[in-house]
Amino acid sequence: ILLPVRTSALNEEIEVLVLLPKNNTYIFSIPRVRPAIEYARTRLSGDLYPGLNFTVHYENSDCGNEALFSLVNRSCMKKPDLILGPVCEYAAAPVIRMASHWNIPVISAGALATGFSQKDKEYSHLTRIAPSYLKMAETFSALFEHFGWNRVLLIYEDDSEERNCYFTVEGVHSSLHVEGYKVDHIVIHKDHSVETDEIIKDIYKTEVVVMCAGADTVRDIMLAAHRRRLTNGSYIFFNIELFNSSSYGNGSWRRGDKYDSEARLAYSALNVVTLMRTVKAEFETFTAEVKKSIQRAGIGADNANVNMFMEGFHDALLLYALALHEVVKSGSSKKNGAQITQSMWNRSFEGIAGQVSIDENGDRNGDFSVLTMTDTQTGTYEAVFNYFGVNQSLEMMPRITMEHFTLRERHWTPGPEQPD
Amino acid sequence: ILLPVRTSALNEEIEVLVLLPKNNTYIFSIPRVRPAIEYARTRLSGDLYPGLNFTVHYENSDCGNEALFSLVNRSCMKKPDLILGPVCEYAAAPVIRMASHWNIPVISAGALATGFSQKDKEYSHLTRIAPSYLKMAETFSALFEHFGWNRVLLIYEDDSEERNCYFTVEGVHSSLHVEGYKVDHIVIHKDHSVETDEIIKDIYKTEVVVMCAGADTVRDIMLAAHRRRLTNGSYIFFNIELFNSSSYGNGSWRRGDKYDSEARLAYSALNVVTLMRTVKAEFETFTAEVKKSIQRAGIGADNANVNMFMEGFHDALLLYALALHEVVKSGSSKKNGAQITQSMWNRSFEGIAGQVSIDENGDRNGDFSVLTMTDTQTGTYEAVFNYFGVNQSLEMMPRITMEHFTLRERHWTPGPEQPD
Repeated sequence: ILLPVRTSALNEEIEVLVLLPKNNTYIFSIPRVRPAIEYARTRLSGDLYPGLNFTVHYENSDCGNEALFSLVNRSCMKKPDLILGPVCEYAAAPVIRMASHWNIPVISAGALATGFSQKDKEYSHLTRIAPSYLKMAETFSALFEHFGWNRVLLIYEDDSEERNCYFTVEGVHSSLHVEGYKVDHIVIHKDHSVETDEIIKDIYKTEVVVMCAGADTVRDIMLAAHRRRLTNGSYIFFNIELFNSSSYGNGSWRRGDKYDSEARLAYSALNVVTLMRTVKAEFETFTAEVKKSIQRAGIGADNANVNMFMEGFHDALLLYALALHEVVKSGSSKKNGAQITQSMWNRSFEGIAGQVSIDENGDRNGDFSVLTMTDTQTGTYEAVFNYFGVNQSLEMMPRITMEHFTLRERHWTPGPEQPD
Repeated sequence: ILLPVRTSALNEEIEVLVLLPKNNTYIFSIPRVRPAIEYARTRLSGDLYPGLNFTVHYENSDCGNEALFSLVNRSCMKKPDLILGPVCEYAAAPVIRMASHWNIPVISAGALATGFSQKDKEYSHLTRIAPSYLKMAETFSALFEHFGWNRVLLIYEDDSEERNCYFTVEGVHSSLHVEGYKVDHIVIHKDHSVETDEIIKDIYKTEVVVMCAGADTVRDIMLAAHRRRLTNGSYIFFNIELFNSSSYGNGSWRRGDKYDSEARLAYSALNVVTLMRTVKAEFETFTAEVKKSIQRAGIGADNANVNMFMEGFHDALLLYALALHEVVKSGSSKKNGAQITQSMWNRSFEGIAGQVSIDENGDRNGDFSVLTMTDTQTGTYEAVFNYFGVNQSLEMMPRITMEHFTLRERHWTPGPEQPD
């Protein structure tokens, strides 16, 4: 990374408003993300831009209307120069609209839903520092094209609140539908029992199954599919696991119940799409610092893992500083939110965990991995594909068995369909 | 109406913020509705409560985000005591959330969508002074129960912006679905051509057709249905016309084209659900005043009709004054928005056009009429049913022919259906 030489050029007081939930049940809560932002702040003001001073206010966004209330209550006194967050879609929407109207840049590691891609109007000042669901969906587009699949069944669980899986699957739906694939879907309402018989009936009619659901639901479906012999290669199964991939690889087929060995066999047909993990030396220091802070805050050690949101909001401050520097150098000021936003777009820089590339629409290009079970005895998973968003390329690992992704000829023939 | 005797008791300065579109393409634009609000203001301060003084600010809500921006920009200086509007659903939602959070009463003659019925949380301070789509749907519930119909096909046009017909039909869907009827629907996307063949196919499978669409679309569908002999009594057809019913009765089958006589025959099978019109002497003065003001504002005479929104916002100020008087008398103040809101609910009063009854959930009970063509030679319409929301009763006019609403036995038998 080439750092600017005349760092002394940037003498600015920046008011930052962070809008995240206080509640630690969210993996992007204030107590979790704060250490990552403070790490970036200290580093930026200390080494890179000694004249750059951030005053950071942390306000509760909850996962809904509270975000807008917090923004408005604070902004009536003095408007912030930069907003970080919100993550939850329903919290983010009104905040981004209001901020765009007020000419304030918003950077979020959330707001991943497809609707926020529309930057021409109400979301004009939004930069997304984590890859959106639409970016994730490119992985499926690449796989569908490569293997010549035609039909997909999307199965997702909907809690009618945060709706992560709804928005996740919406991205896949948008991409594949536009590209001309036949897309069907099944909703599983949270707290309703899973009707595996109904689901199996719909799987018969498709080729590829893409799931986004809780671990138990996925296991129920895979067990049912295995018992009907649908895991023999006539169908391809995927599960999307974006935010807790580290815990997934050690085998969520395992429950310690009597179905474990059956589940292990079933999961040998289940592929997992996750965020690609990169490791660089500097990242270790960051991780250690953040973990220490989180543990000091009294959040259990189990939940102290560094996640996409912590990385993202760290890099958000970095990206803002780079853009602000450029804008100030060009003779403009921190008050020109539109220009700062534009300066953050179509740009690559070195983030805390590796290279970060923001596309010309202000959305981060994403790298994703496809994991499969490479040892059916132990039931362990390894990456067999990597998808790189910046050049839309699919990298195959030597360990891949292409047969695993090739649809076997059906023994079952679907009857003539009703005209739609 | 019993007016309070000690009117001098109410000495209050009330800041009112009216949030409506400036643009006169909306029949609830500021220039149209303003005369109705001013009429109420003058009357209230002049006769009824001489010590009650309203300062009314009219701000542009557009039909979207602008409403929230207007609210926030004004409220940073000083919060209003009462908000009238917005009407458009997407404009209303964030305003009502913000106002409820700030403890400010909101009264709207719009925000008619079903979602706003949820007053327990984010819409706690909303009072609806015009009957919601859910109230309109009660008319269908009453008819379905009376005539023993079982299946309904909802056909609606969606513009993906204001979405009036989407929200209208949503109300019917919610009611009939909950009551156990079989409900199907077809969306017609605005600016797409109407695929009457597809629609006819779906009509074959139902008993009752309920439409909400532009006049041309309805005419296309009715002509197609007539040509397939579906207007012979085997199916019941409805069109919902809430806001321009006065223009509908003179026959929208008429276009001056070569299909007019065919359309007149087709429309003899089409029933229309509209707002019930009442007339009282005082209303004539109001109407004359409002029309004069609108014409003075340079809006063409054709569009000077008094509509539900004008009546509603007039009555809104009246209702607020009644509630405020009660709250102040009880020792509380205009700052207690929750108490004023509660005081407006579960109350009846004499509005400008007749009795207004607000239910215990803060939503107005509605009266609706069902019109049918009573003279097939001239093609004129008359009311044959009136539905009264306050006691959920259905009144039948002597001129009704029950046969018209009785499903004739089918000549066509549907094939065995696929299990869902």
